Amino acid sequence: MIRVLRPQCFFRRLHTVDPLNVKLRDTSQFVRVKPVSKLRSISSPDFISSPNSKLQSLIWHRPLQNVFVTKKPWADNTRQAMVEFIAHLHDSYPEINVIVQPDVAEEIAQDFVKNPQSNPGQPHILYTGEMKDIVDKVDLLVTLGGDGTILRAVSLFASMQVPPVLAFSLGTLGFLLPFNFKEHKKVFEEVLNSRAKCLHRTRLECHVIRGGSDGKEGKSVAHHAMNDIFLHRGNSPHLTNLDIFIDGEYLTRTTADGVTLATPTGSTAYSLSAGGSIVSPLVPSILLTPICPRSLSFRPLLLPHSSHIRVKVGCKNSQGPDNKLVRLSIDGVPLEDLNVGDEIHVVNEVGTIYVNGSQLPSTTDAATIKRRGQDIKNAGVYCVAKTENDWTRGINELLGFNSSFRFMSQREKEIENLK
Amino acid sequence: MIRVLRPQCFFRRLHTVDPLNVKLRDTSQFVRVKPVSKLRSISSPDFISSPNSKLQSLIWHRPLQNVFVTKKPWADNTRQAMVEFIAHLHDSYPEINVIVQPDVAEEIAQDFVKNPQSNPGQPHILYTGEMKDIVDKVDLLVTLGGDGTILRAVSLFASMQVPPVLAFSLGTLGFLLPFNFKEHKKVFEEVLNSRAKCLHRTRLECHVIRGGSDGKEGKSVAHHAMNDIFLHRGNSPHLTNLDIFIDGEYLTRTTADGVTLATPTGSTAYSLSAGGSIVSPLVPSILLTPICPRSLSFRPLLLPHSSHIRVKVGCKNSQGPDNKLVRLSIDGVPLEDLNVGDEIHVVNEVGTIYVNGSQLPSTTDAATIKRRGQDIKNAGVYCVAKTENDWTRGINELLGFNSSFRFMSQREKEIENLK
Amino acid sequence: MIRVLRPQCFFRRLHTVDPLNVKLRDTSQFVRVKPVSKLRSISSPDFISSPNSKLQSLIWHRPLQNVFVTKKPWADNTRQAMVEFIAHLHDSYPEINVIVQPDVAEEIAQDFVKNPQSNPGQPHILYTGEMKDIVDKVDLLVTLGGDGTILRAVSLFASMQVPPVLAFSLGTLGFLLPFNFKEHKKVFEEVLNSRAKCLHRTRLECHVIRGGSDGKEGKSVAHHAMNDIFLHRGNSPHLTNLDIFIDGEYLTRTTADGVTLATPTGSTAYSLSAGGSIVSPLVPSILLTPICPRSLSFRPLLLPHSSHIRVKVGCKNSQGPDNKLVRLSIDGVPLEDLNVGDEIHVVNEVGTIYVNGSQLPSTTDAATIKRRGQDIKNAGVYCVAKTENDWTRGINELLGFNSSFRFMSQREKEIENLK
Amino acid sequence: MIRVLRPQCFFRRLHTVDPLNVKLRDTSQFVRVKPVSKLRSISSPDFISSPNSKLQSLIWHRPLQNVFVTKKPWADNTRQAMVEFIAHLHDSYPEINVIVQPDVAEEIAQDFVKNPQSNPGQPHILYTGEMKDIVDKVDLLVTLGGDGTILRAVSLFASMQVPPVLAFSLGTLGFLLPFNFKEHKKVFEEVLNSRAKCLHRTRLECHVIRGGSDGKEGKSVAHHAMNDIFLHRGNSPHLTNLDIFIDGEYLTRTTADGVTLATPTGSTAYSLSAGGSIVSPLVPSILLTPICPRSLSFRPLLLPHSSHIRVKVGCKNSQGPDNKLVRLSIDGVPLEDLNVGDEIHVVNEVGTIYVNGSQLPSTTDAATIKRRGQDIKNAGVYCVAKTENDWTRGINELLGFNSSFRFMSQREKEIENLK
Repeated sequence: MIRVLRPQCFFRRLHTVDPLNVKLRDTSQFVRVKPVSKLRSISSPDFISSPNSKLQSLIWHRPLQNVFVTKKPWADNTRQAMVEFIAHLHDSYPEINVIVQPDVAEEIAQDFVKNPQSNPGQPHILYTGEMKDIVDKVDLLVTLGGDGTILRAVSLFASMQVPPVLAFSLGTLGFLLPFNFKEHKKVFEEVLNSRAKCLHRTRLECHVIRGGSDGKEGKSVAHHAMNDIFLHRGNSPHLTNLDIFIDGEYLTRTTADGVTLATPTGSTAYSLSAGGSIVSPLVPSILLTPICPRSLSFRPLLLPHSSHIRVKVGCKNSQGPDNKLVRLSIDGVPLEDLNVGDEIHVVNEVGTIYVNGSQLPSTTDAATIKRRGQDIKNAGVYCVAKTENDWTRGINELLGFNSSFRFMSQREKEIENLK
Repeated sequence: MIRVLRPQCFFRRLHTVDPLNVKLRDTSQFVRVKPVSKLRSISSPDFISSPNSKLQSLIWHRPLQNVFVTKKPWADNTRQAMVEFIAHLHDSYPEINVIVQPDVAEEIAQDFVKNPQSNPGQPHILYTGEMKDIVDKVDLLVTLGGDGTILRAVSLFASMQVPPVLAFSLGTLGFLLPFNFKEHKKVFEEVLNSRAKCLHRTRLECHVIRGGSDGKEGKSVAHHAMNDIFLHRGNSPHLTNLDIFIDGEYLTRTTADGVTLATPTGSTAYSLSAGGSIVSPLVPSILLTPICPRSLSFRPLLLPHSSHIRVKVGCKNSQGPDNKLVRLSIDGVPLEDLNVGDEIHVVNEVGTIYVNGSQLPSTTDAATIKRRGQDIKNAGVYCVAKTENDWTRGINELLGFNSSFRFMSQREKEIENLK
Repeated sequence: MIRVLRPQCFFRRLHTVDPLNVKLRDTSQFVRVKPVSKLRSISSPDFISSPNSKLQSLIWHRPLQNVFVTKKPWADNTRQAMVEFIAHLHDSYPEINVIVQPDVAEEIAQDFVKNPQSNPGQPHILYTGEMKDIVDKVDLLVTLGGDGTILRAVSLFASMQVPPVLAFSLGTLGFLLPFNFKEHKKVFEEVLNSRAKCLHRTRLECHVIRGGSDGKEGKSVAHHAMNDIFLHRGNSPHLTNLDIFIDGEYLTRTTADGVTLATPTGSTAYSLSAGGSIVSPLVPSILLTPICPRSLSFRPLLLPHSSHIRVKVGCKNSQGPDNKLVRLSIDGVPLEDLNVGDEIHVVNEVGTIYVNGSQLPSTTDAATIKRRGQDIKNAGVYCVAKTENDWTRGINELLGFNSSFRFMSQREKEIENLK
Repeated sequence: MIRVLRPQCFFRRLHTVDPLNVKLRDTSQFVRVKPVSKLRSISSPDFISSPNSKLQSLIWHRPLQNVFVTKKPWADNTRQAMVEFIAHLHDSYPEINVIVQPDVAEEIAQDFVKNPQSNPGQPHILYTGEMKDIVDKVDLLVTLGGDGTILRAVSLFASMQVPPVLAFSLGTLGFLLPFNFKEHKKVFEEVLNSRAKCLHRTRLECHVIRGGSDGKEGKSVAHHAMNDIFLHRGNSPHLTNLDIFIDGEYLTRTTADGVTLATPTGSTAYSLSAGGSIVSPLVPSILLTPICPRSLSFRPLLLPHSSHIRVKVGCKNSQGPDNKLVRLSIDGVPLEDLNVGDEIHVVNEVGTIYVNGSQLPSTTDAATIKRRGQDIKNAGVYCVAKTENDWTRGINELLGFNSSFRFMSQREKEIENLK
């Protein structure tokens, strides 16, 4: 999947808008904002396997009620689509509650002037609040935009159960294979009535362990990656030395620009650029792909998704203030820099088998532990799918996979095909 | 795994030796041959998963009794090892029955002159018979040789449940990661006493469907591949045109030398040479790797092991008597040539999900259907493993994986490692 | 360049038509065939470099007189184009003599009924004869068809100076970058009047040395390759072992499907499929690209065009009647099979530097020696070029080079490009 | 060649030591420092080609007199070797003048206490001065260290004729294939007496053109690269968009981490890590290798060394303060950051052919213009070579090129080789 990144300003806005005091600019007769805390708690659907299908049926046992709608920022067409979609929900399904982020509520409020409730005098109700409150309420996550919008929206649920994702695109194709927005009425109705099917995508969990002398030893923070986790030298002129261990066994030291650990979903993101294979999201695995290694023989690896992978930053060949640093990115978003001696532990968010000699550091943070304690049958991300073969079609349509050369005229090709 | 091929003469000898009339050349006081049909039927062990392990424990509920011993042909050291191993079994475990192929019985009989039974006057008993009778009796398969010996031995059980494999090497390293023969007493004792662990490797099943005009239409024969199935132009000067479908959905037409479909086990065989990734045997998947494609953009694919893959031979760009042919090989052994219009259907021997629009041709042969009707919980090949990390060690030790360059003197490296 | 092969029957026909007795089927009033031996000998142009150009100007010091016209066999549109082209030459340039192969003369004769000479009563004169006689007379080689037609036509001049090549395509694109046939009048006039420019392409020379026991020891035959020379295992189930020496120095033993040695022109043929880089025809070099090697670290090599490369067939790991054979192909056409111990010596047809310890076997055939004795300033193939940048355009238009992914809608791309 | 970088502090020291006031710490009886300006001007040798050799003979017409000796910084063993080498020159060749950098003079002065002149009472004379003065005097450049030391030393002559390079290593292997220091007496004597041969390596010239709004428009500075020039996104989370033009013709836009333009010498440096072919230094060419491109079909290219390559920084898909920047590095050393709209022009330092529509910007700096005005017959870097086949040996010994797998025991290999 293409890496589209969380623009910093997006988050800056998010955090500076007071969710309890969204400015509605004289639009209050059309829109009313309510606190998300008023809604009932999350109600997860079941995901049922059936013969002759590689997908899971999405079945609501309690009716779908709380829909969190997100969108690509700063794009007029997604904003218009969002307003149209919310108006449709309010018109057709009065029992559905629409949740948006505070800044989005503010941004779109004025647009409802042109999309009033069909029931005159009734304003559109938008639920909002702080993200920590929102994430406890969401039955269904709807995204309007491309792959980047999905990645961003899912990342808001980092340590939580991610609600099922219904993604719509507005012209932009994407590797997470969204629906065309034109179909939003029909598709939403199918999801609501338990007639949709989902593709299960898993995420990677990344634990950073500080081993250096900067006073942060032992603290472990878990990050979740839908695409990939990568270490890279960034601006440093010196290659990184990374020691890689699989299930406690030493694999290799790579001297390279860096290394990427990717989900099958991420096999078409940075791993692809670095030479990795294209992997179906249905193959439970972790891709280990080196980035520009100083070796002729570091072929990309596919490891079991039960693997526990440890990567430790080795010393560089040269000294200097910036040379010790290795950049860590999650789904393309730069996080913290690592120093010599620091390490990351990467596991799948579900299904890891820790063989003897291999274990996550005990200092793993509370949220992760809580998560582990929960029922994790639904860990990963369930994405509403169009057909059984979305992926096969996608690599053909999106990647220009196996393009043939253009030596033959169209006519010759046709003749040949007739033979 | 390296492709070592079934030498044709090996099979020729096999079929020309009358199993009921093995010549024992005056060695009858040391060896006696008995018909394998006298033995009790196969008794399969259970394979039990446990936490903290990616392997399965091999547990015998009924005692292990019938051991089929095979070896690399024409090699003195494996012949000597075989005699030594059989003598050890007879001496230490009188309840164990040793089965060998008829030609092997004849070949090794004279060697027992130097390895008489410790119980004087008692000859060594070797059970033998036709392969179709042998395969119904084997509790444990022991191989002496390299990867090729394992592939050959397993191929004898093509449509049957493959017994657990205990492989010993004699100096030759291999990707199926055999034990050193020096350890044979200790390791056999562990297997016998249900203290061994197995790595589960799956096989691919290949069905050939004739679509042409040669009178063979509709007949389907199933072949089993532990490593790979590949189509190749062979001697033809013309590239093949192959149309590939995944689960009934058209993927692509490749114009290429050919294409290989590999198990994870086979990811280090021909697929590796063709540019494929290295895949752990624990990743349930099928590798689709093109061989020298006429395209810049046919990146190798990893498909779910539940996939149904169909490859149809398209017409070539030029005519000629040999140009219609495409060679089909299973685990490196050439089988039948395919013509334009013929197709192969490839599935994993266990776990295929046939989505709508995708199915195996109905003419699948009886042996396969019978096999499907059986309990297939133990389909695939269980190989007795040394450690949890055999594979990680293997790619380092065997492949020269990620070799570093030799710019630094040894001393400099040591210094650096100390930093 | 795409490999299009010399169809065997093409040559069979060629050799069975008696050039002195072409049947003209009642068309003698429109066509008359004359022996090529009547024409004056070859008159080569000069190729002049100039500043600000990477091409050479084609300058005729004696007027261009003898034009050899060849075409793709069995294609109606090339046949029609040939007749049209010849009629144009006869009409517009009565001093030009048109040479064709005997079978072509026979094939096209009847077509001139519809394209009579503009001067009534005058038949079209076609010169023909045996190839050995034709090659001594040709000032300019005109091809009608695709890359395959050019390769075939050039191969007729294997050990001779190749005349400048003017290539026209009929819809088919090709890597040798022919002109569109629609421009034939204008382009021919430019060539005739010394206003054309040529791209110089070099060829490889391949000498086969028999080292085995089949009585052919020591005989060396030189073949010329415009694209590539490759050794391949063909139908053999066993990989080849090839020992490679550069300028007398041992480079490596490769265990592989085979190896290809290519000109820069051939970098977009089989070498590309095998993973080689794309090389401009202006880079004087020889590409050594392994075909599916059993190694992670055989990166393709670019050697100086002055290199002397020796490849010796090593023994295979297994025995068998066919296993000793390795197939040799020149420009995609299979030639002789090699045995264990046989070797090929490959050099550029011009400019080889034999350092100490490196030399061609002394038994090189007479034609090659004669050729070497001649002035070889014009060795290689001069192809009339369209522009300085044909190649840059070609890789974009023909190969689908660096295709971008289609995530962005067309509109988004346009917007972005405007920024 | 491996990228070893100019440590920043190395240059810092260089510039802060006053060359006229080197502190000699009571060692003046052993060492005396004199200004380099006293020496006669540079006297370049001739480089003569001969049949049967790919190297050039280094012939001094005026005797070799001024030797500039450089070393790897901070390494005891190179310091000792330097002192030993200088003492040898002074003892054996009193007519030779030894030049060192000021900081090196200071560093090694005390070491001569243990290596006094053999002529008692005579101090060792070291010539030094500012680099701009040194570069006008050097007949021969001697380096002690690895590839990095050579790159650094050569970079000191950026816009000047580089003197012939005689490189010694101290244990460290390198791709520039230095001599073992143990041979220094013999090798120096051969160089002095015109019995040495040189390998000619060319460099790339990089001109930066500012197109943005930062007030630096139009200024062009030329940098010289012995290995490579690369553009990389560095710390930016966003891929770069780079528009590439060859000889004025648009080639492609790449969305990637970056792109590298390398000499054949640099084909084993970063280009290799990014997937480029290995190119002999005797192949006159420029490698264009993408770094992690967002495309399946950007195969590395080899362009003629006469090419003029222009790369323009396109806008990124996302905004942000750092997102406009692209990092430019020369031989692995980061130089200036480029902005959207900036471009680099890359040519070989000798032999560029500017076809119509292609030219270097007219604002090229004075030093480059001066250089162009000079006789450039000796442009590039002549490196004293060991044998004709240094390169072939190098890729085998240094890169682990074409490592075979270790399936066969050593004994089996021997047996096979005997066949």
